[in-house]
Amino acid sequence: MSLIVQKFGGSSVRDAQRIRNVAGIIAETYLQGNDVIVVLSAQGDTTDDLIAKAQEINPNASKREMDMLLSTGEQISVALCAMALESMGLPCVSLAAWQVGIQSTNVHSDARIKRIDPERVQMELDQHRIILVTGFQGVDRNGDVTTLGRGGSDTSAVALAAAFRADLCQIFTDVDGVYTTDPRIVPEARKLDEITYDEMLELASQGAQVLHNRSVELAKKFRVNLEVVSSLERKPGTKIKEVTKVEKTNIAGVAKDTSIARVALIGLQHNPGVAFQVFDLLSKHNINVDVILQSIGREATKDITFTVHKKDLVEAEEILNEHKAALMFDHIEADESIGKVSIVGVGLMSNCGVAAKMFEALYEAGINIQMINTSEIRVSVLLDEEDVNRAVKAIHAKFFDEI
Amino acid sequence: MSLIVQKFGGSSVRDAQRIRNVAGIIAETYLQGNDVIVVLSAQGDTTDDLIAKAQEINPNASKREMDMLLSTGEQISVALCAMALESMGLPCVSLAAWQVGIQSTNVHSDARIKRIDPERVQMELDQHRIILVTGFQGVDRNGDVTTLGRGGSDTSAVALAAAFRADLCQIFTDVDGVYTTDPRIVPEARKLDEITYDEMLELASQGAQVLHNRSVELAKKFRVNLEVVSSLERKPGTKIKEVTKVEKTNIAGVAKDTSIARVALIGLQHNPGVAFQVFDLLSKHNINVDVILQSIGREATKDITFTVHKKDLVEAEEILNEHKAALMFDHIEADESIGKVSIVGVGLMSNCGVAAKMFEALYEAGINIQMINTSEIRVSVLLDEEDVNRAVKAIHAKFFDEI
Repeated sequence: MSLIVQKFGGSSVRDAQRIRNVAGIIAETYLQGNDVIVVLSAQGDTTDDLIAKAQEINPNASKREMDMLLSTGEQISVALCAMALESMGLPCVSLAAWQVGIQSTNVHSDARIKRIDPERVQMELDQHRIILVTGFQGVDRNGDVTTLGRGGSDTSAVALAAAFRADLCQIFTDVDGVYTTDPRIVPEARKLDEITYDEMLELASQGAQVLHNRSVELAKKFRVNLEVVSSLERKPGTKIKEVTKVEKTNIAGVAKDTSIARVALIGLQHNPGVAFQVFDLLSKHNINVDVILQSIGREATKDITFTVHKKDLVEAEEILNEHKAALMFDHIEADESIGKVSIVGVGLMSNCGVAAKMFEALYEAGINIQMINTSEIRVSVLLDEEDVNRAVKAIHAKFFDEI
Repeated sequence: MSLIVQKFGGSSVRDAQRIRNVAGIIAETYLQGNDVIVVLSAQGDTTDDLIAKAQEINPNASKREMDMLLSTGEQISVALCAMALESMGLPCVSLAAWQVGIQSTNVHSDARIKRIDPERVQMELDQHRIILVTGFQGVDRNGDVTTLGRGGSDTSAVALAAAFRADLCQIFTDVDGVYTTDPRIVPEARKLDEITYDEMLELASQGAQVLHNRSVELAKKFRVNLEVVSSLERKPGTKIKEVTKVEKTNIAGVAKDTSIARVALIGLQHNPGVAFQVFDLLSKHNINVDVILQSIGREATKDITFTVHKKDLVEAEEILNEHKAALMFDHIEADESIGKVSIVGVGLMSNCGVAAKMFEALYEAGINIQMINTSEIRVSVLLDEEDVNRAVKAIHAKFFDEI
């Protein structure tokens, strides 16, 4: 007998019919002789509806009360799904995060799971009940409800899988796995049978929306066997594990991200510590910086170029301009119409031909590269935003059509 | 500085505007220098909407999962109301019953409060925060969510007032107090300035819908100063206390109840224990019996007549007929078209003129009395259902128009 954690997102439980479908998947797994822990998100639009209610009353509500409000969404999902399983005659129990004892930090709306109390879940497992747990939430040491922020339900599922040493953690989504690139842009995109944690991490942080980074990091740390699988079709998904087939030589996929903007600080003094000052300042305002590039500029000054999320661009410019005197730069250049395209694959950078192949594809497509950034398993290029989809197609064709 | 508990029902918090209104009342009380604990029900139709969702999935859902589902309603209310108070710059915190530690029995959908843990509420009171607590719910010793059944939020409020020795417990409703009778039937009905616990209990159990019996019983037991007051108009309500003005000589009010049906067991053997057998049987099927009347019948047999809730009539007949042989009665007569009218007042039965005055009013109106039942502070008569409103008017006029 195995222990399997199954996580279903908001669209998978959005109405009675979808909940019955989810109950069917759970029942099948349980009736095959497995113990099952289920993690559910709030139904379809519930979270948005609750946010709208809050906005009408107080657009600046505290995060503590927002967490109290929003956490009802997952509780509705687990209770309804338990009722669906009850109607099939299966033993089950729904539990909110505070009942499980999913202890978190007290950072409301963006809490981190610290530990999971074993008692209640173990008691229910001992009785072979299907356990339905509210995703996306925890309880802090004061007994206040917290939520885990973006990708929170995936993280809840992986954390439960790690805590109870589950044999498998299945993340059910609208798509049937991880693809070599976005199938909406490249119809020839292929589903991957397996991918390593690191590749998945790079793909996720480069714009692939299937799994959130935090859950993959946690899965990697605790060696949780993850699987991304469709909640609508019964077919194999994508397995995410430490090592994949050794004969794999190709890249894992092509990702794009058009949510970024480029900021260039022109004419910085060539003093030590300037880069530290710039990025420390941005970090203190919670502005995440992605690709960073530094170059020698005109007249012994230097330029620092980096990317931020489009939504942070105005604030980043304001903050930097406020500190113009201290930072001693000449002026700022900002560009919102850029995008990033990345290839991801284990061993990519130790195989020097791979990056060249990517650049060749872009050259053949007549696409200009603005910046290049690499990691051990990733090569990213910054392009004009209007070139992004064309670049994804060209690179995908170069790497996958030849095989 | 006083501690005041304020309870608001579902219609008082049904939308953003009503929640702002409620927040205004709470703020006024708090800014007068009082500590305030607020108890809220679920918003307007929330509970019905959640029940409909459950019905669509499983009409026979377990009560445990129904409690898990329905308890989200009050949590939404307290979070939203806290946000309204936050927008007024007032310190506040919303707490679900499990966070307060409202410990209850484990009878799902009809739990009783056993005790309330003092720690969390006291900590918040020490910091002079307005505390918003989910009404209608508790947590059992396993950490499972329970709901308290009908009138549950009133009971939550009174229990909190008792536990923290509040100076006053205000129950805010759509009406502005307790009336001498239903103003929709008798426009001349008067609002009572005060009423005793016992009178309120009798009025509540005789059909007055303002307060639920359980909350009044609890208030009486712990000597909680209760007040029924309007959430829509700022004017004095009705105070419910142990002793009211000594000069009061009149009855407190006239109540009606048309939800009952009459059952008569005709031709029972005159053996000891027959009444016990009948009512033990009904009680085991959770059928509540109200007025009971026993009379000697024809040929040394006897008849037992009693009333049940209309919804229980068919089941009661079925159960009794199943046991016809054991109970040895001749036949059953059932009548759904009856109603009950009661007068309630402390000292009523020690003042023999009062009952006579009631009967006189009915005689003058040409209304036939089917059964009479009395308690220390109440006289009830059973009538044809079509006579009920006319009887209420006649009795009310007799007792209140003369003063």
